[in-house]
Amino acid sequence: MTLEVGVLGYRFMGKAHANAMARLPMFFPDAPEIERSVLVGRDEEALADAADRFGFESTATDWEAVVDDVDVFYNLGPNHVHPEPSIAALEAGTPVFCEKPLAPTLEEAERMAEAAREAGDDVPAGCAFNYRFVPAIQYAKGLLEDGELGEIRHVRGRYLQDWLVDPDAPWSWRLDEEMAGSGVLGDLGAHTVDLVRFLVGDDDLAGDIERLSGHLQTFVDERPVEGQDETRPVTVDDAYSAQLEFANGAVGTLEASRYATGHKNDHTIEIHGSQGSLRFSLERLNELEVHREGDRGYETILVTDEDDPYVDHWWPPGHVLGWEHTFVHENYEFLSAVAAGEADAFEPSFEDGLAAQRILAAIQEGDERGEWVSLE
Amino acid sequence: MTLEVGVLGYRFMGKAHANAMARLPMFFPDAPEIERSVLVGRDEEALADAADRFGFESTATDWEAVVDDVDVFYNLGPNHVHPEPSIAALEAGTPVFCEKPLAPTLEEAERMAEAAREAGDDVPAGCAFNYRFVPAIQYAKGLLEDGELGEIRHVRGRYLQDWLVDPDAPWSWRLDEEMAGSGVLGDLGAHTVDLVRFLVGDDDLAGDIERLSGHLQTFVDERPVEGQDETRPVTVDDAYSAQLEFANGAVGTLEASRYATGHKNDHTIEIHGSQGSLRFSLERLNELEVHREGDRGYETILVTDEDDPYVDHWWPPGHVLGWEHTFVHENYEFLSAVAAGEADAFEPSFEDGLAAQRILAAIQEGDERGEWVSLE
Amino acid sequence: MTLEVGVLGYRFMGKAHANAMARLPMFFPDAPEIERSVLVGRDEEALADAADRFGFESTATDWEAVVDDVDVFYNLGPNHVHPEPSIAALEAGTPVFCEKPLAPTLEEAERMAEAAREAGDDVPAGCAFNYRFVPAIQYAKGLLEDGELGEIRHVRGRYLQDWLVDPDAPWSWRLDEEMAGSGVLGDLGAHTVDLVRFLVGDDDLAGDIERLSGHLQTFVDERPVEGQDETRPVTVDDAYSAQLEFANGAVGTLEASRYATGHKNDHTIEIHGSQGSLRFSLERLNELEVHREGDRGYETILVTDEDDPYVDHWWPPGHVLGWEHTFVHENYEFLSAVAAGEADAFEPSFEDGLAAQRILAAIQEGDERGEWVSLE
Amino acid sequence: MTLEVGVLGYRFMGKAHANAMARLPMFFPDAPEIERSVLVGRDEEALADAADRFGFESTATDWEAVVDDVDVFYNLGPNHVHPEPSIAALEAGTPVFCEKPLAPTLEEAERMAEAAREAGDDVPAGCAFNYRFVPAIQYAKGLLEDGELGEIRHVRGRYLQDWLVDPDAPWSWRLDEEMAGSGVLGDLGAHTVDLVRFLVGDDDLAGDIERLSGHLQTFVDERPVEGQDETRPVTVDDAYSAQLEFANGAVGTLEASRYATGHKNDHTIEIHGSQGSLRFSLERLNELEVHREGDRGYETILVTDEDDPYVDHWWPPGHVLGWEHTFVHENYEFLSAVAAGEADAFEPSFEDGLAAQRILAAIQEGDERGEWVSLE
Repeated sequence: MTLEVGVLGYRFMGKAHANAMARLPMFFPDAPEIERSVLVGRDEEALADAADRFGFESTATDWEAVVDDVDVFYNLGPNHVHPEPSIAALEAGTPVFCEKPLAPTLEEAERMAEAAREAGDDVPAGCAFNYRFVPAIQYAKGLLEDGELGEIRHVRGRYLQDWLVDPDAPWSWRLDEEMAGSGVLGDLGAHTVDLVRFLVGDDDLAGDIERLSGHLQTFVDERPVEGQDETRPVTVDDAYSAQLEFANGAVGTLEASRYATGHKNDHTIEIHGSQGSLRFSLERLNELEVHREGDRGYETILVTDEDDPYVDHWWPPGHVLGWEHTFVHENYEFLSAVAAGEADAFEPSFEDGLAAQRILAAIQEGDERGEWVSLE
Repeated sequence: MTLEVGVLGYRFMGKAHANAMARLPMFFPDAPEIERSVLVGRDEEALADAADRFGFESTATDWEAVVDDVDVFYNLGPNHVHPEPSIAALEAGTPVFCEKPLAPTLEEAERMAEAAREAGDDVPAGCAFNYRFVPAIQYAKGLLEDGELGEIRHVRGRYLQDWLVDPDAPWSWRLDEEMAGSGVLGDLGAHTVDLVRFLVGDDDLAGDIERLSGHLQTFVDERPVEGQDETRPVTVDDAYSAQLEFANGAVGTLEASRYATGHKNDHTIEIHGSQGSLRFSLERLNELEVHREGDRGYETILVTDEDDPYVDHWWPPGHVLGWEHTFVHENYEFLSAVAAGEADAFEPSFEDGLAAQRILAAIQEGDERGEWVSLE
Repeated sequence: MTLEVGVLGYRFMGKAHANAMARLPMFFPDAPEIERSVLVGRDEEALADAADRFGFESTATDWEAVVDDVDVFYNLGPNHVHPEPSIAALEAGTPVFCEKPLAPTLEEAERMAEAAREAGDDVPAGCAFNYRFVPAIQYAKGLLEDGELGEIRHVRGRYLQDWLVDPDAPWSWRLDEEMAGSGVLGDLGAHTVDLVRFLVGDDDLAGDIERLSGHLQTFVDERPVEGQDETRPVTVDDAYSAQLEFANGAVGTLEASRYATGHKNDHTIEIHGSQGSLRFSLERLNELEVHREGDRGYETILVTDEDDPYVDHWWPPGHVLGWEHTFVHENYEFLSAVAAGEADAFEPSFEDGLAAQRILAAIQEGDERGEWVSLE
Repeated sequence: MTLEVGVLGYRFMGKAHANAMARLPMFFPDAPEIERSVLVGRDEEALADAADRFGFESTATDWEAVVDDVDVFYNLGPNHVHPEPSIAALEAGTPVFCEKPLAPTLEEAERMAEAAREAGDDVPAGCAFNYRFVPAIQYAKGLLEDGELGEIRHVRGRYLQDWLVDPDAPWSWRLDEEMAGSGVLGDLGAHTVDLVRFLVGDDDLAGDIERLSGHLQTFVDERPVEGQDETRPVTVDDAYSAQLEFANGAVGTLEASRYATGHKNDHTIEIHGSQGSLRFSLERLNELEVHREGDRGYETILVTDEDDPYVDHWWPPGHVLGWEHTFVHENYEFLSAVAAGEADAFEPSFEDGLAAQRILAAIQEGDERGEWVSLE
């Protein structure tokens, strides 16, 4: 059986997922057979061009006609387009793979998670936090699960970009609260929050985040619209930070910015446990720095060995992977869950997306109230 | 004229300052002539031994007899011993060089600063934040003052040690609120807060810290007393973090811990401005990473050139300095101010020590109240 | 017009090139249209399986029937299979893309280059030194051509692997002189020599290598045959080094090993010129370290900006590429030259392959004679 | 008993050793008591000033009167002044500590070593290769001796400086064959050769260097004399490289330059053994990178723990040392050997200096003959 995949969104994320699907047969031959069936968008010309480039059979401008027609629905549109099509698809019993953050608001994320629950055990609903699928992150997860770092004391996550440093950089939908929900918080912070939950969320590591203090800041209030003689207001956060307290007493700090001069896509995670520590940086995604019990410093591990997660599908040791490979891995896992008809077989799920959203909402609430916020 | 120096404290800091004073004649020949005159402590035997090693003429167990007898008084004792002898010396018109943090409590720090003010313009009162005197930090300061980084957006400071990771590591006075005032906050956080003030505190950079959110955590509540069959309670913080907002809207995060497995003395400062960025790490203290306008990444600068701050006093380019050199530099500056009889000629002063203490106190207050705290 | 591509070899290199060809339409839409037409090999079962995975229309066990039937011929077999099929294809007027090193012996490389010359100006004959196509290497080439490093004084290249550290690691064809021609020298050294020629070979940089001293070493003389109760002799070099002198007086050192414990695929190039320096490491292939006139240290550049070589075809800044992308780039360039019918439009050519081989042969000769060898 | 020390040379090395001697009482209280007795030089004014700064009792312009008057003689003059005073001192039974390289020529080094042999077992004759006394190097030595790296396969040493990159940088005695003996070879190469011998010279590691190929290059033939309107010829090497073969079959490459743009004092050693590897860089001299059996990458060790070599004499973990500390350590060891009257108690000895010189001479011979040279 060939799974017919419908995809909403044909820009950055559309390209990343189309490429991932195209590469499965050669590198993951046991992945389910799929057809890039229909690409959904509004601008017909751009859409047709993208469909041609990305290898889709057809195009559609109306997602409603698509969501119950296909075997799988990918929601890769801007954040404000995440809820309705995803819910409609789930109501039609169609598995959904939705980009992060799950929704612009917590309320919408809750509705989406509810729809996923109601769709049942055989309808996977995945939230595409691709960084879980970096081999080095999977390797880190393994170390943590095996107790190599002991009980967790400290977590540090930050995501630094610099594309807004110039106050004349143009306005985009990502700077509009209506369309994006939030700024760096949802765009970058969501990734960090998900990785933190993924890596140390187990009860015998650090457990859930119980309390936090949040801070949001906007440095430049309005920006020029490209090609037009006007400016539009920036209604989202340019930077955020948070202090965390976990169930076991561990503490953490989170941070992201689009004003970190000199940093392009610098997502780093640092964890200190009672027996070891680790560090990861997305710009060197093939590497993991690990300090184990008895070590004196960090060992820089190139996570490209044959028995490292996913690596046997690719190239010999030392032949490094890139950013895009994370999408191949997550597509493989998600589509396998779809083919198996097992919602549980894929994480991060909509529940994970919702959990991340709760934390993001609490950060926002903490910023507004100037107080620490408890997550029940 | 030879300055007679009296020093209270003969352990770690006593050794560091004694060494610094001993090295001045060879490397800073224009430094004032001094005599290591009297070393003050309580344990006569240990004191005599230290005085012999550190090159002091005499010893005393009673600081009161010393503070107006000498030309300069160094207060290098535990934090709770900072206030009274320092105030007494200043009241006697004796310049004081006091280790950081200035005092265990904000109230005591205020009394000390008041004493310094009353001692007058010709009596220097310095707070020994030695990290200001790392050549790379002075070089960074120069870049910032010259506007090379533009307006500051982000500041990140953290100080990681790991000597308490083991829950059976012994109790010490540093873990007692009475004697130490606080834990990492005063011991490590004070350094970070001072460097942040020093580097970005100018109004055209980031300005003062206006609001902050603080968090303190104690991971292990009691510890064994070395050589005795008992435990004592840990009454200070094992780790702290803070979120900052500066006068110009810049944001910051601070953090320190004694539970950061794998980190010995890892004090890092990172700053992003509208035109550039910089990074410093104490464990590689001869280096500064700088991103200037037009650069694409960070340039790793070995701050050991002839025209780098203080370097011409030492060795040729590339012959790296160590941690202890910061003490030589600050002693040179402080003693020169004493010889000149100009309180203004030395910073960080007791006022700087007090300003740092206000921020530390606000962090503590924020932690207690679970709220953001404004610094007037 | 669609180019029919015939490919000999279906293992590591077969997979790398098949993947590259498969990715062209999505990322290089102006690449010529191609069909992966026929895959050539000896083991019919493995071949059929590979053809299926790699997306080939058909298979063949006899290359002679293929080389003039297809529009382009890729020779990706073991080194000893490079000469005859490549020459036959060129004699049939079929463009050839041949893996490196061009041939097992200098004599055969000369015959291949001669065949390429005779095939004429419209028949590209490329030697697949893929590392020329790393964006950071292309960026380095641009800096060098622009004179940013001035006149070259020093070149340093080394390629470190560790898959033979264990004396019981199994024998393979790469350890047999008949099949491989040489050991690390042809396998790894060829890459380094080609990069050195590519980067500094211009007369106003360092010019040609004029003299050299070579050294080859075999550490383990025989190795077990996998799955069999016998050993076979290792008849090639396990490590090599060379000292170089260039036309302009610049000096260099080269080195490679399969016994460099802890190094998987560590190919580094370092160049010092009269005005600047640069460093590259394959395991961090998205980065280039550059020291320009007036700099004090090296700037670490992430070569993933939109205007960096090839990067606009892929992802936004900071979204790193992997090892395999070099194959996409070289396939794009080679196939474009084929479509244009311009042999000159693609480098490295068979002439470049031959030039590298001359240097490798001189290294070998220098080792045998224990003398410096001049390259006329 | 107080050892009276006479020192010839009061520039860079004079300062380094005077400082080292001055620091012994505070940090190495069990070091022999010494008196900086007499400083020897030619320029009386500069000499008097230096003696004052460096804490010497007296000065002398005639070394002959000094060498048998003092208890210990330090020869820190330019290379061509090493032989005669050192030999005279030894003939007078005075222990000698001589800077490296031991002599300008092999013949003179042989005479010096002969004098040391004849002086007898109770007269230490040390060659001041200070880099043996970096804690990280001593730690590396310990690992190697314990067999942690197994049998050695590869050694790589290079020493990069850039103070001659500018062709108008002034002439100095270091560029004159008469006075310096050689250029980088003796100045920088001597350090590398000594470290290689020290670290891997044991028979169960790599053993002696048996054969080598050498290369010397001078990039700029004459240079202006500072403050004068003339140039003088550069009669020494600006750069050298060598290929090595050790007794056990291990191979090595050495290299140094004063034209390595962007490198100030970059002395690196890399060693690969059958079970592990290590890397050291002088510009980060507190660190050692170690790969042990079972590791996947290098662990970056900060060699500042209490039980690391010499560290307990200084500061707590993580409080880094500088370049000058190596002199304190070697002075401690050398003076202790003098006090004990045991020539054997100190290494590197004149024999070690001679052994290094033999290798340097062979490199020079190899360059002249264009052939590999055997060391008998």
